[in-house]
Amino acid sequence: MPAIAADGIECPQHVGIVGLGLIGGSLAVRLRSAGCAVSAWNHRAHPYETAARIGIECKDTLEELVEAQPDVLVLCNPLVAMPKILQTIKPIIDPARTTLTDVGSVKGLVREQVHAAGITDCYVGAHPMTGNERSGWTAANPGIFDNALWALTYDEHTEYRRIVQVAGLITRGLQNSLIVIDDETHDRAASLISHMPHVVSTALINQMTADPDRNIAAELSAGSWRDMTRVALTDPDRTCAMVVENSQNVEVLLRQMASRLTEFADALRDDDVAAIHRFFTEGQTYRDFKQHLANRNSGETETVFTTLRIHPEHWRSDFLESAKRGEYIVRFTSGHHALAERHPTI
Amino acid sequence: MPAIAADGIECPQHVGIVGLGLIGGSLAVRLRSAGCAVSAWNHRAHPYETAARIGIECKDTLEELVEAQPDVLVLCNPLVAMPKILQTIKPIIDPARTTLTDVGSVKGLVREQVHAAGITDCYVGAHPMTGNERSGWTAANPGIFDNALWALTYDEHTEYRRIVQVAGLITRGLQNSLIVIDDETHDRAASLISHMPHVVSTALINQMTADPDRNIAAELSAGSWRDMTRVALTDPDRTCAMVVENSQNVEVLLRQMASRLTEFADALRDDDVAAIHRFFTEGQTYRDFKQHLANRNSGETETVFTTLRIHPEHWRSDFLESAKRGEYIVRFTSGHHALAERHPTI
Repeated sequence: MPAIAADGIECPQHVGIVGLGLIGGSLAVRLRSAGCAVSAWNHRAHPYETAARIGIECKDTLEELVEAQPDVLVLCNPLVAMPKILQTIKPIIDPARTTLTDVGSVKGLVREQVHAAGITDCYVGAHPMTGNERSGWTAANPGIFDNALWALTYDEHTEYRRIVQVAGLITRGLQNSLIVIDDETHDRAASLISHMPHVVSTALINQMTADPDRNIAAELSAGSWRDMTRVALTDPDRTCAMVVENSQNVEVLLRQMASRLTEFADALRDDDVAAIHRFFTEGQTYRDFKQHLANRNSGETETVFTTLRIHPEHWRSDFLESAKRGEYIVRFTSGHHALAERHPTI
Repeated sequence: MPAIAADGIECPQHVGIVGLGLIGGSLAVRLRSAGCAVSAWNHRAHPYETAARIGIECKDTLEELVEAQPDVLVLCNPLVAMPKILQTIKPIIDPARTTLTDVGSVKGLVREQVHAAGITDCYVGAHPMTGNERSGWTAANPGIFDNALWALTYDEHTEYRRIVQVAGLITRGLQNSLIVIDDETHDRAASLISHMPHVVSTALINQMTADPDRNIAAELSAGSWRDMTRVALTDPDRTCAMVVENSQNVEVLLRQMASRLTEFADALRDDDVAAIHRFFTEGQTYRDFKQHLANRNSGETETVFTTLRIHPEHWRSDFLESAKRGEYIVRFTSGHHALAERHPTI
């Protein structure tokens, strides 16, 4: 029987969480406070006392968690532990009862591992676009999911009903929105907006520490430097793992970024006014997009909604094209209709 | 007669402000609220009504402002207007009564212009390490000076007493701290922590808008992308001007950054685990430095102060070495002694 949240919203799921770190812990707390039934297992028991106090049912072993047959089992463990965890889950999980998903920032690799474990059919990829430079249960904070957008990902084996199921958890349990795209598109986009920038940010602090006047530079650093290097303060091992998991996409983007910087350096050397001007104006559609979001958030611009019809035969391309049009799904209104918030394209 | 601030702190100066934009406006409001006598001129009169209401004396012309003989005249105008403004000031300013300073982010170029106008002797370079992506009087906010650090800069013509005078305005009028360095060191450090990163941030948004899946990428973008591209939302003309003013230093750093990114891309291609690990650990001293600052701000680490003795004969190197040791001057305790906050070096 589904749990009922305090505000009367029906939480559609019993959710199992593997790993109570920054993301898993925050997710567990948020879903629990929305009234969902939440079970969890963590490789060390230190979060259990606090977690149990707010009604999260903590299991002694991963096996026990899977045997409890949650509607959705969310893998929030580090990627390095994934193969072993999948091997443990494989013989116990009942695909008829449980849908498997995860929160990893690289989808292709997780899919391969799930496929290798032979449990692809019950799997839906998921990536919440949130997080911060902290980690672990002590950093868990349900607020990191405020207004978060999720990417759900599919391949040719994915079952449509499982997408709708995980989407329900996101829109109803978390009050978040989502897009649905294929793994490859996700991993390329994620390398652009997160993995490659993490490398750039790290290169910036390396540039500083290599400078003979590094202490003066560090003293003078203010807002722009602080913001651009914040993600380089993240646990370097975690960043490294994330980048290596998506290394092919990151490599391509780093070379393109290096070319952009070199071309601009050439323009400065040559005092090429036209090239310099072009460099500073070519991203204007993105600035306009951000201004639109700011206007929406301040209530100056009305939010535009659209109804998305998802055809049973070609739901993959329906979702993908919707995402490309700048639409965020806010809820499913029926099995094949969704309400989406529409933003201007860039 | 010096004005007395509400809290009883003596504001040592009558300050003239040229230009009531983001920095000049914020500075005028903050100094006024600290009890300083503040006069101002702006090339357009639209800020005058609000400014006058809080006791800022607004002058109809730049000439009138200079003729009022403020103790310190602070040029907060855009750099493009600097030659004309200096030409206007030159025949009127009384160097015996008024010290000239500015707030520009590039010191070498302003010094050249001041030198060309023949008023080097009364000039001290200054650069408050603050600001944001907004601009103009409507964006002015005295809070941008909370805990700000200033760089004061000198060349071989600078008079020591004027350094102490402007420093007094910063430490007593603004409750800010400062370091004192030469123009070249400043401009190299500023290009590292601000001008070059502005170019990198702009290159990131250009990379996104050039991507076929740019809308999906924009949808998925979250905290790391937002922080790393915030400064690229700045008025591109202002950023462009700032970068071009310091083009030689920026060019060198961009080529070094491009090399770093390319080398790391090579390491990813070659799966060179050692090189990848080195890349993610070489900036560790900076992470430790940031942790130190966080501990200090949360009160976990005590602030360490040191007394700096400045010798009349070699004050330039005394200040420069102090800055290199990671010391921020918080106040002058006598004409040749300063109290400085000491931070660990990186």
